[in-house]
Amino acid sequence: MVDIATRVWNHKWKIDPIVRSLIDTDFYKLLMCQSVFRNHPDTQVTFSLINRTKSIRLAELVDEGELREQLDHIRSLRLTRGESTWLRGNTFYGKRQMFTPAFMEWFENLQLPPYHLEKKDGQYELTFEGTWPEVMLWEIPALAVIMELRGRAVLGDMGKFELQVLYARAMTKLWEKVDQLKSIPDLRLADFGTRRRHSYLWQDWCVQAMMEGLGENFTGTSNCRIAMMREIEAIGTNAHELPMVYAALAETDAALRQSPYDVLADWHEEHDGNLRIILPDTYGTKGFLEGAPDWLAGWTGIRVDSGDPAAGAETAINWWTSRGEDPREKLVIFSDGLDADKIVELHKQFIGRCRVSFGWGTMLTNDFKGLVADDALAPFSLVCKAVSANGRPTVKLSDNPKKAMGPEEEVARYKQVFGVGAQDAIDVVV
Amino acid sequence: MVDIATRVWNHKWKIDPIVRSLIDTDFYKLLMCQSVFRNHPDTQVTFSLINRTKSIRLAELVDEGELREQLDHIRSLRLTRGESTWLRGNTFYGKRQMFTPAFMEWFENLQLPPYHLEKKDGQYELTFEGTWPEVMLWEIPALAVIMELRGRAVLGDMGKFELQVLYARAMTKLWEKVDQLKSIPDLRLADFGTRRRHSYLWQDWCVQAMMEGLGENFTGTSNCRIAMMREIEAIGTNAHELPMVYAALAETDAALRQSPYDVLADWHEEHDGNLRIILPDTYGTKGFLEGAPDWLAGWTGIRVDSGDPAAGAETAINWWTSRGEDPREKLVIFSDGLDADKIVELHKQFIGRCRVSFGWGTMLTNDFKGLVADDALAPFSLVCKAVSANGRPTVKLSDNPKKAMGPEEEVARYKQVFGVGAQDAIDVVV
Repeated sequence: MVDIATRVWNHKWKIDPIVRSLIDTDFYKLLMCQSVFRNHPDTQVTFSLINRTKSIRLAELVDEGELREQLDHIRSLRLTRGESTWLRGNTFYGKRQMFTPAFMEWFENLQLPPYHLEKKDGQYELTFEGTWPEVMLWEIPALAVIMELRGRAVLGDMGKFELQVLYARAMTKLWEKVDQLKSIPDLRLADFGTRRRHSYLWQDWCVQAMMEGLGENFTGTSNCRIAMMREIEAIGTNAHELPMVYAALAETDAALRQSPYDVLADWHEEHDGNLRIILPDTYGTKGFLEGAPDWLAGWTGIRVDSGDPAAGAETAINWWTSRGEDPREKLVIFSDGLDADKIVELHKQFIGRCRVSFGWGTMLTNDFKGLVADDALAPFSLVCKAVSANGRPTVKLSDNPKKAMGPEEEVARYKQVFGVGAQDAIDVVV
Repeated sequence: MVDIATRVWNHKWKIDPIVRSLIDTDFYKLLMCQSVFRNHPDTQVTFSLINRTKSIRLAELVDEGELREQLDHIRSLRLTRGESTWLRGNTFYGKRQMFTPAFMEWFENLQLPPYHLEKKDGQYELTFEGTWPEVMLWEIPALAVIMELRGRAVLGDMGKFELQVLYARAMTKLWEKVDQLKSIPDLRLADFGTRRRHSYLWQDWCVQAMMEGLGENFTGTSNCRIAMMREIEAIGTNAHELPMVYAALAETDAALRQSPYDVLADWHEEHDGNLRIILPDTYGTKGFLEGAPDWLAGWTGIRVDSGDPAAGAETAINWWTSRGEDPREKLVIFSDGLDADKIVELHKQFIGRCRVSFGWGTMLTNDFKGLVADDALAPFSLVCKAVSANGRPTVKLSDNPKKAMGPEEEVARYKQVFGVGAQDAIDVVV
């Protein structure tokens, strides 16, 4: 029986725009956006797309017209009534009315600001300028668009059954990981894979497969729209952009040194419980923890997002112990470069010594490695970062020098201010 | 967009009856049926289901009510107008009007005869009695029903995504075989997998995957309904039931010895070209070929369906040579126990020495081996055979004693009459 209306609808490309909603984004972007909206509504920022995998020449793979069409579509999106209702009415991390009426009113009227796009050396230069709260919401959709257009360029040449088998293989791969993760009885695992996903539909499939395969051990997704559609928890806390912009705004070295703590002081005022998670690596985890005020030791946990994850967790555990806290009551969230083997290994290593949870990203929602010729669908390392704030460049050091960014002389100054010495370089795959 | 009508329709079990048409059967059954309808319309036969894999206790796995429901549904089927038009109007093996008006008229009015079902020792005894042309059409649907009900019993306990991954794995498995077979430039391969298929939908998927993956090298399917729906060739010639029933009807040892040739004499009158394929193994290939009349050497080819396939092909080549024929113009069809590796091997071994083609059955349409716990979906060896004709038992010897059937004393008599000596036993998997 053919549903003619569906068939006709399917002829129109809008059946699968890459980003289909303003809340097809990570939950922590909205949490941070509200914080920024309250504390820095007028700060002018520039966000820029950075492809760390130079060998992938995006401007040769992705058609500029298609890219503009997708970005223009995102600018046409508005928060829908149902989405607004969900944000206003839902309980997030056990709290009702997480989003204030003032923020919601602003969000309901938001259109994402214009973008600037040009080609250079086989890459796209894609930048966004404007006030911080509106520009920051471009990050996730911009990444998702580029990732998926690069995939669609490869998929366009494949036959119907070849395509079906491709997805069959990807499903099989994911399910083998689910089977592996089932063996961990007290696993806590969430989907953090929106930004570098293969596609929306695939992320949605992955989330549903995890729901069935892992049951309660799958704690939710960072993707608000999928959380809404699948009626599961939206997960996330805060990211590097907060300390990066706060630091760029600092007028003196002393203010710079203090800025990462200012971020968390603002956060402390706004949130409690499971949302009080320290992300300590922006300017080096070691120095950050040594210089941290005592009230930070009372926070719920630490997210380990760069460097060797086991070393990061040991550092956190030692720090809590040194501050008189019981690490067994503290939460370590691993969120960098995870795959099933690594999750099993880290869980085994730390469970019992602290509470452990995982934010699993790219290798959950985009493991198409080895599935097509020339590995043309393998995920790669694409980011979209704040590069300046009120005209001053931003800097990130991270616990892995390969993830560092910013102008050379500023990087040097930050290293000095934050007392960052030699670091181990770790290749960044995704 | 929900198509409400489809949704409601889907609630009814008839959305997926196991057998959905009287031509959801092998093409050679219809060719043979027409021959039987002309030459032996009143012969009374009994067909019986035989599960060669005793370890699979079908009566414990398959619900009797469900089995009856499916068999009753098959009895409710009639040839549809479109199916009749396809049989009457199509070109089969280059010939128009393959089916005579008299046969078509009979077929259009056919209802399959009643069945007899009881449980014994954990197995089902399923038998069909009546005139040969009508009873013989039960064979394929009866096998397909039992095979699929056994599968459905396993699938019924699986989750939605677990199910999707199961099919993803099966698709991946098949596609790896397609990739392997793509490397043979002059392959001729058809689907012979109706009788032991996993399901109709799965067979249909496999056929379409082969169409896309192998292109012209995939020559068609034995399944008439799928051939009709996918607009490809219906493939097949004749089977053991013809010599088995002809032999059972023979009054003397001399008539018995002659009976396999009588079958082909009747066939010779009716068909030419690619339909003139000898199936020589019913009572031993060696004796059959030695005693064959010269006109049989002029036939197009030989189907090798039991014993070691390479040995069978060598026997055929030697026989053609001894009869002054050029084996390079003759066709060898391999159709027993094939999988991709074996196809590659046999093709390599015989191409250039004769024409080679393959009828690939169970491991094309039912390779669910190793995909679920306890291998509960692995195919097994189920057949449905003529066991008597006009009250006399039938016998099959085959080139593999493990495929032999019939009462012990009759088997002994046949062995003597056909001069069958020692044979190599080969395990029958499917």
